[in-house]
Amino acid sequence: MERTHIAKVVPGEKVKIAGYIENLRNKRTMAFLVIRDITGKIQVTLVKEEHPELAAVVDQLTIDSVITVTGEAVANDYVKLGGIEILPEEIRIESVADALPIKEDSAIDSRLDYRWIDLRTEKNTLIFKVQTEMTAAMRKFLLDRDFLEFHSPKIIGAASESGSEVFKLKYFDGDAYLAQSPQFYKQMAMAAGFERVFEVAPVFRAEKSHTSKHATEFTGFDLEFSYIDDFHDVMKFEEDLITDMIEKVAAKYGDDIKRLYGIDTIVPKKPFPVMTVADIYKELEARYGYTVPESEKGDLTTEAEKMTYKLAKEMFDHEFLFVTDFDVNKRPFYHMRKDGVPQGFDLIWRGVEITSGSQREHRYAELCANAAEKGLTEDVKFYTEFFRYGCPPHGGFGVGVDRLTMLFLDLSIKEAQFIFRGPDRLNP
Amino acid sequence: MERTHIAKVVPGEKVKIAGYIENLRNKRTMAFLVIRDITGKIQVTLVKEEHPELAAVVDQLTIDSVITVTGEAVANDYVKLGGIEILPEEIRIESVADALPIKEDSAIDSRLDYRWIDLRTEKNTLIFKVQTEMTAAMRKFLLDRDFLEFHSPKIIGAASESGSEVFKLKYFDGDAYLAQSPQFYKQMAMAAGFERVFEVAPVFRAEKSHTSKHATEFTGFDLEFSYIDDFHDVMKFEEDLITDMIEKVAAKYGDDIKRLYGIDTIVPKKPFPVMTVADIYKELEARYGYTVPESEKGDLTTEAEKMTYKLAKEMFDHEFLFVTDFDVNKRPFYHMRKDGVPQGFDLIWRGVEITSGSQREHRYAELCANAAEKGLTEDVKFYTEFFRYGCPPHGGFGVGVDRLTMLFLDLSIKEAQFIFRGPDRLNP
Repeated sequence: MERTHIAKVVPGEKVKIAGYIENLRNKRTMAFLVIRDITGKIQVTLVKEEHPELAAVVDQLTIDSVITVTGEAVANDYVKLGGIEILPEEIRIESVADALPIKEDSAIDSRLDYRWIDLRTEKNTLIFKVQTEMTAAMRKFLLDRDFLEFHSPKIIGAASESGSEVFKLKYFDGDAYLAQSPQFYKQMAMAAGFERVFEVAPVFRAEKSHTSKHATEFTGFDLEFSYIDDFHDVMKFEEDLITDMIEKVAAKYGDDIKRLYGIDTIVPKKPFPVMTVADIYKELEARYGYTVPESEKGDLTTEAEKMTYKLAKEMFDHEFLFVTDFDVNKRPFYHMRKDGVPQGFDLIWRGVEITSGSQREHRYAELCANAAEKGLTEDVKFYTEFFRYGCPPHGGFGVGVDRLTMLFLDLSIKEAQFIFRGPDRLNP
Repeated sequence: MERTHIAKVVPGEKVKIAGYIENLRNKRTMAFLVIRDITGKIQVTLVKEEHPELAAVVDQLTIDSVITVTGEAVANDYVKLGGIEILPEEIRIESVADALPIKEDSAIDSRLDYRWIDLRTEKNTLIFKVQTEMTAAMRKFLLDRDFLEFHSPKIIGAASESGSEVFKLKYFDGDAYLAQSPQFYKQMAMAAGFERVFEVAPVFRAEKSHTSKHATEFTGFDLEFSYIDDFHDVMKFEEDLITDMIEKVAAKYGDDIKRLYGIDTIVPKKPFPVMTVADIYKELEARYGYTVPESEKGDLTTEAEKMTYKLAKEMFDHEFLFVTDFDVNKRPFYHMRKDGVPQGFDLIWRGVEITSGSQREHRYAELCANAAEKGLTEDVKFYTEFFRYGCPPHGGFGVGVDRLTMLFLDLSIKEAQFIFRGPDRLNP
């Protein structure tokens, strides 16, 4: 007999269900079990007298044990869970659970120690349903537009974009590093004439940060495309991608997000608002009296970034904000410049940066000059070579999958990752 | 004006195209340029007298420079490429290429040194079109069946499945390792009640092998699902997945594969043939006189594996072969056993193993006993813990994306990877 998912059980049918025991009341004459699978919960009601052999099975059970139950589904108005209960004819024990070491409200570190138990709740499982839909929607958007998927190496020969913050590993008789981003390789794909590429893959940052949004390993969603006119093409593309993705997540899980997290999933209007860094500081000062020293005005401070949530809401009734015109010293050497202004942007959602993007410098001479100016020459030589033998103009951006997940559900990064990795956490 | 992809150019229209210069004949009165983009090639024909300013631009061009051309597309029966040529009104130089350091028939190592140039040919670009479709098809198959996508950590605290062959890295004040597979984590997802998960991500193997099919880093496509009856459910699922995927690749790129590689993409019949290791050796001896010592008969030798291509063709007219009943000593401790027989399989395509799969041992006591028997206890303790607090029966398998790509097009692994990583190759 085929297993039926709990959400699909209808009264009057004989069914086989399977799942974890969420609740267990083992009385003298009756036993009530609440079974949970990925789709929902249902009550199993056993009249012991009728099935003494099943009563003996139930006596062995504990919370979070896994069982398979075959029986008749019947309507019962007194049962809370959808008004259906199952009268069991057979109960098979798949796995008996020891007493659980954590509870739903245990401290986050204990929950991470036993992450597989922590993830069993409907609320926490939803995190990965949302993440799955989010990633699938973005990938489909790109595949529908003829993007190629590629897989760039994570073990690299030279410390990439900057010398700091990379993990070093022993590679046979020499050393190697873990890639901080697929940046150089997605641009290599442009130099290979692939025109449009994306990659969803882990990136590694050896930063000793202990914030609610930093991890040493996370999943990057990166893309790059050729023959753009300028970086506004990249911004336009991103707002289309993000809007489509939120639309799909809202359609599939908007109600669950509201029910379990109390959060409204708002599909953004297009176009997204755009402000220069300078204008943001002007408004923050005028509206909230927030100022920073002149020397810090080339980039957004973490606090300014946070305040843009309120600002974008007030000025544009929008949760997103594109920020442009950063100081050239605050941007990587591979961003194209025009009259000294980097041709790129950040995208902020709910006060947190989710993207850096730009038109890239594809002209060999200009690129080498920019690198030299930042004191990078030998380190990036393998990369600048990509642009010596012909390369189309191109641009792109990356978004952090975990960070997007976090923002969807107002979580910390520790909760948003399947397994969190930080300076002090390597297990499980 | 919007750019038009070359394959979409029709005579009689004014178009803007962009791409690499594949061929350049710059004569006294005329210039002929063949431009290549991701969709095809087209000739640009310049009558110099009519456009002296464009003649000056063409004088600066080299092979593989990138240009944007605006002009009229006209039919011309004398032009080979689709009978269309473009009469340019404007030529913009995007990027001038230095003299190319490699040719199409250069030695593989030089080609890998300049991989971005090597990949520009239609033939090599097809590798990643095929790979994109292959991965997209498999992912869609799983998403349509309610699989959740997850991202497991690549930096792990303990050397995973075995102590050998892992890369070690410095992790702040301690050590860490690179994951050899997401095996333990996809099973953790089962213990978390996720029921069905998949991951497409890099895996790392510190093997000093120099074969045509081994790499130190490659892309694994891994999946795992709960509530199976036995490992035949897993095999059935895999043959459905693989068949659907090959069908889609054949539909989209079958003609290109035939034209550029001379290979027929054969959609396999279902069910795939299944043989035990013992039966394979019997047939190999009877048919081809191939024998191995009794001590090696618990597993397939590399040579036996290769010979199964011919064997499966002869016996079943099939390119695939499931192999079962390996010796228990040749299989990992986490495979379930029944009467001493591992409940798993390999899948061989065209004489190369593409998958190992099995029902997993989800019972804590049995799992710990199996681990102890292999001398693994402390190393895998973090993993065996997953099964102490309830876990459904489950199974799964993984396929190598690069290896599948390789087999589709009869390539070596060096050619099939976007960037190959081997013991002697860390660049670019």
